Amino acid sequence: MALPGGAAMNITIRLQFEKDIVSFSDIAAAIGKAGGDIVGIDVISSSKVHTVRDITVSALDTKQCDLIIEALKKIRGVKIVNVSDRTFLMHIGGKIETNSKIPVKTRDDLSRVYTPGVARVCTAIAEDPRKAYSLTIKRNTVAVVSDGTAVLGLGDIGPYAAMPVMEGKAMLFKEFAGVDAFPICLDTKDTEEIIQIVKAIAPAFGGINLEDISAPRCFEIEKRLKEELDIPVFHDDQHGTAVVLLAGLLNALKIVDKKLEDIKVVLTGIGAAGIACTKILLAAGVRNIIGVDRHGAIHRDETYENPYWQEYAQLTNPDNLKGSLSDVIAGADVFIGVSAPGILKVEDVKKMARDPIVFAMANPIPEIDPELAEPYVRVMATGRSDYPNQINNVLCFPGIFRGALDCRAREINEEMKLAAAKAIASVVTEDELNETYIIPSVFNSKVVERVRQAVVEAAYRTGVARKDNIPVGGYTGQ
Amino acid sequence: MALPGGAAMNITIRLQFEKDIVSFSDIAAAIGKAGGDIVGIDVISSSKVHTVRDITVSALDTKQCDLIIEALKKIRGVKIVNVSDRTFLMHIGGKIETNSKIPVKTRDDLSRVYTPGVARVCTAIAEDPRKAYSLTIKRNTVAVVSDGTAVLGLGDIGPYAAMPVMEGKAMLFKEFAGVDAFPICLDTKDTEEIIQIVKAIAPAFGGINLEDISAPRCFEIEKRLKEELDIPVFHDDQHGTAVVLLAGLLNALKIVDKKLEDIKVVLTGIGAAGIACTKILLAAGVRNIIGVDRHGAIHRDETYENPYWQEYAQLTNPDNLKGSLSDVIAGADVFIGVSAPGILKVEDVKKMARDPIVFAMANPIPEIDPELAEPYVRVMATGRSDYPNQINNVLCFPGIFRGALDCRAREINEEMKLAAAKAIASVVTEDELNETYIIPSVFNSKVVERVRQAVVEAAYRTGVARKDNIPVGGYTGQ
Repeated sequence: MALPGGAAMNITIRLQFEKDIVSFSDIAAAIGKAGGDIVGIDVISSSKVHTVRDITVSALDTKQCDLIIEALKKIRGVKIVNVSDRTFLMHIGGKIETNSKIPVKTRDDLSRVYTPGVARVCTAIAEDPRKAYSLTIKRNTVAVVSDGTAVLGLGDIGPYAAMPVMEGKAMLFKEFAGVDAFPICLDTKDTEEIIQIVKAIAPAFGGINLEDISAPRCFEIEKRLKEELDIPVFHDDQHGTAVVLLAGLLNALKIVDKKLEDIKVVLTGIGAAGIACTKILLAAGVRNIIGVDRHGAIHRDETYENPYWQEYAQLTNPDNLKGSLSDVIAGADVFIGVSAPGILKVEDVKKMARDPIVFAMANPIPEIDPELAEPYVRVMATGRSDYPNQINNVLCFPGIFRGALDCRAREINEEMKLAAAKAIASVVTEDELNETYIIPSVFNSKVVERVRQAVVEAAYRTGVARKDNIPVGGYTGQ
Repeated sequence: MALPGGAAMNITIRLQFEKDIVSFSDIAAAIGKAGGDIVGIDVISSSKVHTVRDITVSALDTKQCDLIIEALKKIRGVKIVNVSDRTFLMHIGGKIETNSKIPVKTRDDLSRVYTPGVARVCTAIAEDPRKAYSLTIKRNTVAVVSDGTAVLGLGDIGPYAAMPVMEGKAMLFKEFAGVDAFPICLDTKDTEEIIQIVKAIAPAFGGINLEDISAPRCFEIEKRLKEELDIPVFHDDQHGTAVVLLAGLLNALKIVDKKLEDIKVVLTGIGAAGIACTKILLAAGVRNIIGVDRHGAIHRDETYENPYWQEYAQLTNPDNLKGSLSDVIAGADVFIGVSAPGILKVEDVKKMARDPIVFAMANPIPEIDPELAEPYVRVMATGRSDYPNQINNVLCFPGIFRGALDCRAREINEEMKLAAAKAIASVVTEDELNETYIIPSVFNSKVVERVRQAVVEAAYRTGVARKDNIPVGGYTGQ
């Protein structure tokens, strides 16, 4: 399987070499021998002794880049100043910026957006705090909050290293749904402190997107913030994944002609995402779902230290099955993996019921190699963009927050999530639906608008929308 | 004196009226009688019974607007839907937005700015957190932090109502110095909590601008954050005012041919700004400065409950003068007011030494009416834009943070503030300098670059710059 990073990459190596000791052709030879292809050269500076050049090299993957750099390091007289690839270059200085929506070019502008004119606007909000929604950025702004403890597959890398992900998330909020989002990376892992900080910074924001916070703290943080704040709080790693999974499953079941009520589902990885996926499936009508973690199926005859597993055992596994993944997978209609690479074996898939549906969402390496699984499954989905049916949160969070902000929802509730899942699924028409197309592309422009509509409707239906009139604009109503 | 808001204003009144009961000419007559001038009409909707129109009216000031609205309210059959003026319209939906610096249009873009490519960038920062400065928004981003307790002249109006000021500040950061700034309005007044929150959110930011936090909490908050964070922390209400005051004073003294060392200064209002102004004047070389608050001159024979006044008494008033403002003003060369409207009388000014310099900076109404003072003062400055010599923080904070960010300063120290003051003063050339032009306009484009240069130089000189090379770009060095 290809390494994360996908297709061929370009790197730019800035190196300084001593003219007397080494020539450029020596350097070019070393790069070629290590498998690199020189695609660009810039002379940065040159003295009698040294020359500094930026050499852009095309390589297959990060491994090959490392080999090229190692080869260069071995040449006497060559010093590598730095190495940048396009991904790094795109990150220089960060990926987002804060701009004025109106120019401040004259004294008159200044007196309206700042002192003294702004005082009247402040007074209006002080008299009626609901006006914050019309007169400040609260109307359209979401905080992307992380403590950097569960970032991608990297784990606890801390708030500084988490920033590129949160900035990326803010970009996607804007690009896909016009939502202004700002990254808040917290230099604390204390549950109570995180809750208190998010509550304290909430006035500026119309919603809170929790991101990459490790379990079990993420459960308590989300639960408490939902109770104690009057704006939507949404832990995307849990609910974004769950919503998109459900969307994909709804369409996959149409292909195999099975119903949610009748299927047997086996789900591996009973962490934040696994529990959220289970809960949305139960809410959607699934009756038979068996959770499996490292120690096997979660069942009611065991007492678990983890209170979330204890609760999980009560909600799931109606037949109280015990044993390993290989034991409980027999006869299952659907496998859902939010766990670890390679844990689902071909033999396991062979034991499943007719037309197996496999969602192997571990990132970047799925629970089963799609190419190995292919002969035995009917529908296969992963978290990857280089295989069909990518289960990607980007399908959910922009539209769900767009809808919640537009109707000033006080929360994102279960009905809104279910509505979002159905809306995503609906983008794939009956004509289009097939084994390799159960979920729309993240770049399908219908997705955000459909999700937004469905979420707004669900918010009014369940009484959590606070905007008096159903928002106009893109929204068409039904 | 004109009301805050300055020149004539337009308001747009959306009103609904019953056609059978009232005609538009009745409405127009009422507006005219109340002194308003109709400058625009838009029909918003019309039914058999009702019609809704937006009527734009030009009025002299907010008081007259209120009179017009009162007059309309009294007409039977008229309902005022809402009233907006241009200032309010500029605030709809907030004044700032967060944008992507690079578009995300393709799967390839997505894989670089977000998963999976972003993981390598995260890893690079996890391995060397200093890379946050090159690979995240930290390089160019400042948090504008307030608890909403001392907003403009409005006092403790809370975090929601403070937002328009903080958004305005963020606009000015961007417009004047290209700094990305984001408003953090905190729903807590607890000193320790504010310190802890600002520390926790600091990873995303290259600097902290504290704003509109009431004394004495602002002192402790700034002091502790300066000690405990490795990025610049700057309470603008204190130091911004102090820097710009010093800039103005340096130029005013040239006009009257006096030296900082020789002058007697009387300063009223011993709060956050007053103490900061005093400290910068002492640092700049002033020896004789007497602070006056409600109870009179602060002196060493008194014991003050307020520890900051206790310290103030030790630092100032070398002759240990006692009594009221009118008592101690005799023979003073300079009056500095950061206190309350109208407390400086013409009789007081008459008692000052030759060529009195008066900085009456209370906002929006100065310590003495400039027109009353005019015959008796040599140089007069206020905080207002409608008189000459406006002492406005906008002259300081954009450039001082621009410089601090560009050299990755770990703090903004006294030397950097003094350098900023001298840089601002230097923008007014000897040829230009006169009684009504001691300080440049906030729109003078030289200001930011001069301040930036001076601040960067001072940062390297005092060893607080962390960027290896003196930043290039606008910076020219010396």
